[in-house]
Amino acid sequence: MRGRFTVNLQVRRAHHQLLFCINMSDPWQECMEFCKELTKQAGKMICEALQKDIAVMQKSSPVDLVTETDQKVEQLIISSIKEKYPTHSFIGEESVAAGAPSVLTDNPTWIIDPVDGTTNFVHRFPFVSVSVGFTVHKEIEFGIVYSCMEDKMYTARRGKGAFCNGVPIKVSGLEDISQSLVLTEVGFKQDAEHFTAMMDNIRTILTIPVHGIRCPGSAAVNMCLVASGVADAYYHMGIHCWDMAGGAAIVTEAGGVIVDISGGPFDLMSRRLIVASSRTIAERISKALTQFPVGRDDKDD
Amino acid sequence: MRGRFTVNLQVRRAHHQLLFCINMSDPWQECMEFCKELTKQAGKMICEALQKDIAVMQKSSPVDLVTETDQKVEQLIISSIKEKYPTHSFIGEESVAAGAPSVLTDNPTWIIDPVDGTTNFVHRFPFVSVSVGFTVHKEIEFGIVYSCMEDKMYTARRGKGAFCNGVPIKVSGLEDISQSLVLTEVGFKQDAEHFTAMMDNIRTILTIPVHGIRCPGSAAVNMCLVASGVADAYYHMGIHCWDMAGGAAIVTEAGGVIVDISGGPFDLMSRRLIVASSRTIAERISKALTQFPVGRDDKDD
Repeated sequence: MRGRFTVNLQVRRAHHQLLFCINMSDPWQECMEFCKELTKQAGKMICEALQKDIAVMQKSSPVDLVTETDQKVEQLIISSIKEKYPTHSFIGEESVAAGAPSVLTDNPTWIIDPVDGTTNFVHRFPFVSVSVGFTVHKEIEFGIVYSCMEDKMYTARRGKGAFCNGVPIKVSGLEDISQSLVLTEVGFKQDAEHFTAMMDNIRTILTIPVHGIRCPGSAAVNMCLVASGVADAYYHMGIHCWDMAGGAAIVTEAGGVIVDISGGPFDLMSRRLIVASSRTIAERISKALTQFPVGRDDKDD
Repeated sequence: MRGRFTVNLQVRRAHHQLLFCINMSDPWQECMEFCKELTKQAGKMICEALQKDIAVMQKSSPVDLVTETDQKVEQLIISSIKEKYPTHSFIGEESVAAGAPSVLTDNPTWIIDPVDGTTNFVHRFPFVSVSVGFTVHKEIEFGIVYSCMEDKMYTARRGKGAFCNGVPIKVSGLEDISQSLVLTEVGFKQDAEHFTAMMDNIRTILTIPVHGIRCPGSAAVNMCLVASGVADAYYHMGIHCWDMAGGAAIVTEAGGVIVDISGGPFDLMSRRLIVASSRTIAERISKALTQFPVGRDDKDD
């Protein structure tokens, strides 16, 4: 027994040393591990809300339910992080809606979308996710997207690859756009110019032609679908930084390309992006699209 | 021991009598049970094909792989049924492609889509299904749709309700279209009139407005999503009878409405349908849509 105890102690010590080494060489790894747990908890909270009796959901407004869940989940995430990392900054969808600033600084910053895919949530369409991206000096250090109805946890640490439920993922690498599956968002827009450009863009992409267009309805999941090689591209104008931050790390670490709609460098606060399995496809999509003004996340328009 | 044996024998006898009663009162129940097993086997075959190494899939043409799987699965289903029910008729996507007639008679007829969602299959987008509908005197007696990547087995026997993995399902019952999630198909069409009408219809439906449009890419799964209350409507022009037959039973038994694009009675061979959570929504969609000619499954155009 004593011998086994000594071995156990040695194993535990080695484990602690290993963790210590990881933390010393990579100060953000601990944040990432903490974030994974938190995101899993948040996803569980969303799934519980989704299991509420449908009749109840329809009597009260489903929109109220999603707002309530959105706020609860964001509160859980932010309060837990604040307790552990009191000096860190936050950009969260619900906090910004409540008037908090949405400006990226050099400080370690958690960019959070508590429920990505709110229309899906209301209808239980199976793509609903929690998305967290973490930046330091305005660079994304890691991203976590938890697609909770599918129970898929996507993770990526800068320079360390991308994973789904711990298994490495990579983009398809496809170069021939005519063989591609393209993701985008389709929805009614009050602004007629925006709506017309959105519909025209779908028509133009289909006419290239491509294999097909899908509109799963969660920006963060869309990015993970490209990262997994299921889809080959995703473009969106009018997206927000909290929709993109987690997925941006994942798609980049999976070998994907992420650029602005213009084809230029990706800008997290620009509300526009193309992600693709290859630069060739990203550029082809950029050339095809009609741009329309969408403002920026860090400026009031 | 002897006592336990007697009890076992009695239980077994009672079980056989029960099966006999079911078969006597409902001659098609046995066909349905047989079909469930067969569909599950077929789904397994599809999932195995999907697990083939991605590199292999991209080296050979993914289109070849889907055609090969389509044919293999249809052969499995048809040969198994022929052995058990040699007098029954068949309408299968692959058989029709190979020149078999696609005419519905009064004879018991199995209408089969071996792989519904072939573009999804090629890209591993998670909605791929096996769909079987069974008609007698041109009436659908039961439908089975197995969404194999999700492992969801949807079943419905006429007059007996609809189920997903054995759990009863029902439509949302929603009447207010502005709260609805609508499904349709979006893809490039060589025929310019068809393509323009398809795009205009999406624009018109979005402008009603609705909560959103999704294009999951499997007609049979779309019908099951309406049957489960996830989506509230699905419309499609240019669909085939093998895409609709299984799902039609499921959505009807889940309390849904199924009509022609014109709002008139549903016709399995017409290549057009609207399914909805309520008659109000089906009629509203029918009024909104621009029709375009799509021919019939039982006539050569």
